[in-house]
Order: sequence, then structure tokens, then C-alpha cells
Amino acid sequence: MLNIDKLFESVAAKGHVCVGLDTAPEYIPPKLRRLADSDADAVFAYNAAIIESTFDAAACYKVQIACYEEMGLAGLACYAKTLRLIREKNGLVIADIKRGDIADTALRYAKAHFDGEFEADFVTLSPYMGMDSIEPWVRYAQTRGKGAFVLMRTSNKGMRDFEYLKIEGDLTTLEWSTHPVRRLYHAVGDKLSELAAAYRGEYGYGAFGAVVGCTEREEAAEIRAAYPDLFFLIPGYGAQGGAADDAAILLRNGNGGVVNASRSILKAWSTVHESDAHSETSIENITIEEAAQAARSTVIEMRDAMQSAVKKMQRTGDR
Amino acid sequence: MLNIDKLFESVAAKGHVCVGLDTAPEYIPPKLRRLADSDADAVFAYNAAIIESTFDAAACYKVQIACYEEMGLAGLACYAKTLRLIREKNGLVIADIKRGDIADTALRYAKAHFDGEFEADFVTLSPYMGMDSIEPWVRYAQTRGKGAFVLMRTSNKGMRDFEYLKIEGDLTTLEWSTHPVRRLYHAVGDKLSELAAAYRGEYGYGAFGAVVGCTEREEAAEIRAAYPDLFFLIPGYGAQGGAADDAAILLRNGNGGVVNASRSILKAWSTVHESDAHSETSIENITIEEAAQAARSTVIEMRDAMQSAVKKMQRTGDR
Repeated sequence: MLNIDKLFESVAAKGHVCVGLDTAPEYIPPKLRRLADSDADAVFAYNAAIIESTFDAAACYKVQIACYEEMGLAGLACYAKTLRLIREKNGLVIADIKRGDIADTALRYAKAHFDGEFEADFVTLSPYMGMDSIEPWVRYAQTRGKGAFVLMRTSNKGMRDFEYLKIEGDLTTLEWSTHPVRRLYHAVGDKLSELAAAYRGEYGYGAFGAVVGCTEREEAAEIRAAYPDLFFLIPGYGAQGGAADDAAILLRNGNGGVVNASRSILKAWSTVHESDAHSETSIENITIEEAAQAARSTVIEMRDAMQSAVKKMQRTGDR
Repeated sequence: MLNIDKLFESVAAKGHVCVGLDTAPEYIPPKLRRLADSDADAVFAYNAAIIESTFDAAACYKVQIACYEEMGLAGLACYAKTLRLIREKNGLVIADIKRGDIADTALRYAKAHFDGEFEADFVTLSPYMGMDSIEPWVRYAQTRGKGAFVLMRTSNKGMRDFEYLKIEGDLTTLEWSTHPVRRLYHAVGDKLSELAAAYRGEYGYGAFGAVVGCTEREEAAEIRAAYPDLFFLIPGYGAQGGAADDAAILLRNGNGGVVNASRSILKAWSTVHESDAHSETSIENITIEEAAQAARSTVIEMRDAMQSAVKKMQRTGDR
């Protein structure tokens, strides 16, 4: 079974939330950080608590490797342990590594992240160098069901620099869908659609999906319609300005996408406490259990907001 | 002093060769690998021998992190040790990591690779997500002289998928140089030129250069002329088909670029031996010293081939 099918089923069962474990030490409750032997230990303990408290309400987890690389080798050991923990619980984990390199090198990366000490269920990839930087990863879709999300149209401001560039239509190497305007991200999407036709799961989605941010509402419907066979990893919710209604446009029949949130979940403890006027404990003394419960509440709120947005869209569509 | 100035001076003193330490275990002489406690130990021992034997003939080193990630945490420890060794000898090292992520994340990566356990002098970056994924790295050019090479037009076959796409000229966000045809890689080059204007070293090159392969001879002269202020990291030499004459076109006044070779240097021991009919030792028993000497000979040959190509170009230019 392809991991993309497992992800589809997980979304159907648990909703659309992808919990981003971009666990920088400063997102950890101060007491936990104080008591731990090292930041890496504190991060792992916090990750474990968050995974435990959100497991029944989250479709999957996404681990941003940069937060762990910043802590050096100890951080990367913590990264590997976090991935292992999620996989041992039969959870699904996306390694947010955004790799993109020539074929020989891509194969080495693929071994590291699909078969080695850093094994994940999905990775994120960068398409700049072309499809021969993506294809070595695809072999693992065939042999081990692995999946990936390739950067297509991201949620950061800088996406307008290159992803948004209009490209000329007289290309002989690409078969164009009928996009009203053709931008670089369409060229990436078109190539991913070709790939999806070759490695399609039982729910109709290609083994390799795309990263599409929910910050640009106007094109969301066009993108979803153009790429019905791509499963989307959707960043930009919350801190970057995207709302549940925006993210819902990128879904298809209520599935076909997971919506990532990170800081709002990991740091939920800081806002929960502010609103709790009766509490005697200061923010300095919040326990790991309280923080994990706050994270859980945020995930459930987000899951429910997504469900409501999907229902609202379906009602609107029914009219 | 910016690292890009140090690199300029290193090229002037030692030539154009960038030794690629893409040291996969299979590139190591069999005996060394057999005797080592682990592949990671063998790789480090071999790297140290290569660095020692090529130090006076190489402009810099480039370490491909994928080869180390493939070996897991032990591999990454070996990666960190290799970088440290080069820097302790006052050599220059490019971390070939091709990172590219949103600003917050890019800053974490930058800390890891410019200031942490994995400190390098230069990194490689991927531009897909836009210039806000590059800018956090630039702060380290200001504060610590660090540099980077951003993927522009690479040497792999897949570069035609996206890097080569023709983009429309009616863009309002970009100031266009006068390129005969405007492709995605020009848009990247133009942005890097803007950056170079803000962070320029004393020899006229921006702190952040570009990766430009030497496999497409026809556009090399146009690219060099369009971006006089960009220092180029030039892959594609040898195995990928580029020759010294092709690479020389990407230089400017005999400087402004380093040419990477990896496998041909690391595996020089395998071909040297084949041509040595009188030797009694089998390939199985090649010593680390013999392998390091073979690597040195290959680097010197390549250095001299580049010097000849530069002289030839200058003669042709004089006519």
C-alpha cells in the first residue's frame, strides 16, 4: 500500500491537521527546558508528549530538519529518534528536508531518508534542478510505498520571485494543461501530474504530491481543479495568514490535502496560560502535561475548523 | 575580508580546482575500507589524506553532505570533522547542501552551517522559493564574511525541465538585463546580481555567487558576459562531459570561478593502477598513500589543463 493511500485514510479518520514538529528550544515550556540535560533532550521529551497528546486528532506529523540541524549532531540524533517514535506508533511522518540534487546524489539522499537512520514516510523535495532530481526518490514509491511533496507554490512572500514567473507557452517539452496564465509553478505541477499518472494510489492520488500554500486564495480553486491527482501539503495556515476557508479550497471532496501548523501548536501553552486568570502557576512552571494538553486543544480546534470549512464549501457547492 | 575574496586569492595562487569530497565508501581504496572500524572512519581517513596531498594544488574543497547523510549520524560526524580539518588548515570549504526554505527556517539552517557544528566557509543554496529564502544567509556575509553559491544553471540533464523555461518579458518585478532569450536561470542570475551590488568584495565579485555548469558551451559566454560580478562554482567537468575549454569560458580574466571534480580525483587510484603493468600489488592492496598521490596527480593535471585553457582563450581574445 502506498503511503499516500495511508495518508488519505488517516485524513478520512482523523481530519486534516499535520502537526509541524519544528521544535526549536524556544518553543518548549521553560520548566522542561530548565530541567533537561540538553536542549536536544528537552526537544525530544516535548515531541514525545505532543505526539502522544495529539495522535488521535492529527493526520500526520511533519518534522522540519533545520530546527534539529541547528543543534548539531545531538539535534540530528533527536530528529532520528522523533521519526522513529512516530513510525513505531504507526503514525505517518513527513521529513521536511526540501532536498534537490542531481540523480546520483538524490539517490544517496533517498537512501538516507527512506531507508537509513533517518527513515521517514514522506519527504519534501525542491524541483529547481529538474525531474532527474526527483526520479531517484520515486523508486522508493515502487519498492516501499514512500511518498514526497514537491515544492510547487509555497506560502512565503518570496514565492513571487521565481515560482510566479510567467512562462512562455511555446514549449515543446511540456504538455500544457489549460491554465489561464502559465507560471513556473504550473510547469512543476504538470510534471508532477505526469508522475502521478505513473504511480497512482487506490484513492486516485499520485505517490508524489505537491506543496501548495493556502495564502493566495484567488488561485487556490484553479490549482485544485488543474491537479485533481495531486495530494497537497498545505503550509501557511495561521501565522502566515491562511485560514481554514482558504485551506479548504485546496481539498477535493474533503480529502486530498493536509494542513500544516507548527508554532501555534507547539507554543499553545503560552497563550492558554494568559487567558487563565485563576491559575497560580506562572508561565515558568507550566508542566509538560499542561503544554501537551494545550497543543491537543489547538489541534482539535484546527481540525474542527477545517471540518466546518469543508462542510461550508460543500453546502455552497450544492447550491 | 569576505570569503569570496579569499577564494579569488586562492584561485590566483593555486588554480581553479575545487576538490569534491563526495566521498562515498565505494570510492575508497578497498584495503583502507577493509581495515577501518567503520565506513565513516574510512571516509574520514581518506578525506584527510586527500586534503593533505592536494592542499597546495586546489583552490578549495566542496563536501557533498548527501554522501555523509547516507551513513547516518556517524556519517554526519565525519562530515563535521572533515569541514573542521579543512578550516583548521586555513583551507576554504564549500558545504554542498543546496538548502532553500522560508526565512525563519533558512536562519536556522544558516546558524547550523555558518556558525554551528557544521561551520563551512560557503554553502550551496536552491533559489526556488525566492530571495527571502536566500537573504537570511546573507547576514552572515556581513557579519562573518561567509559566502554561497546559488543554483542557477546546473549541469544535469534535468536542468532543461525548469531552469531552461523561457519566461515572459513583461515582468514588473524584475529589471531585465538584455538577454537574447530570457530563461528562469536569468531571473535567478539577475536577482543574484542585485545582491552582488550590495555585498561586493574587493575583487569585484558579490559575496554570493552562482552554480553554473560547464556542459552547455553555447550559452557559457553569454552567461559570463551577463554576470561579470558573479563568481561561479562550476560543476560538470569530466564525468558529466565538460572539458577545460568549456569551463574556461565561464571564467573572467582567468579568475571568477572554481571547477569542481570529485569522482575522477577520489577514484584516481583505480585508473592509475590499471595503467601500471609492472606493479605486483593488486587493486585490493593499494595503500592510502598511493591513492592520495594518484588524487594529487589528477588535481595537478586538471589544474594545468585549466591554466592552458585560460591561456588559449586569452590568446584567442588577443587576436
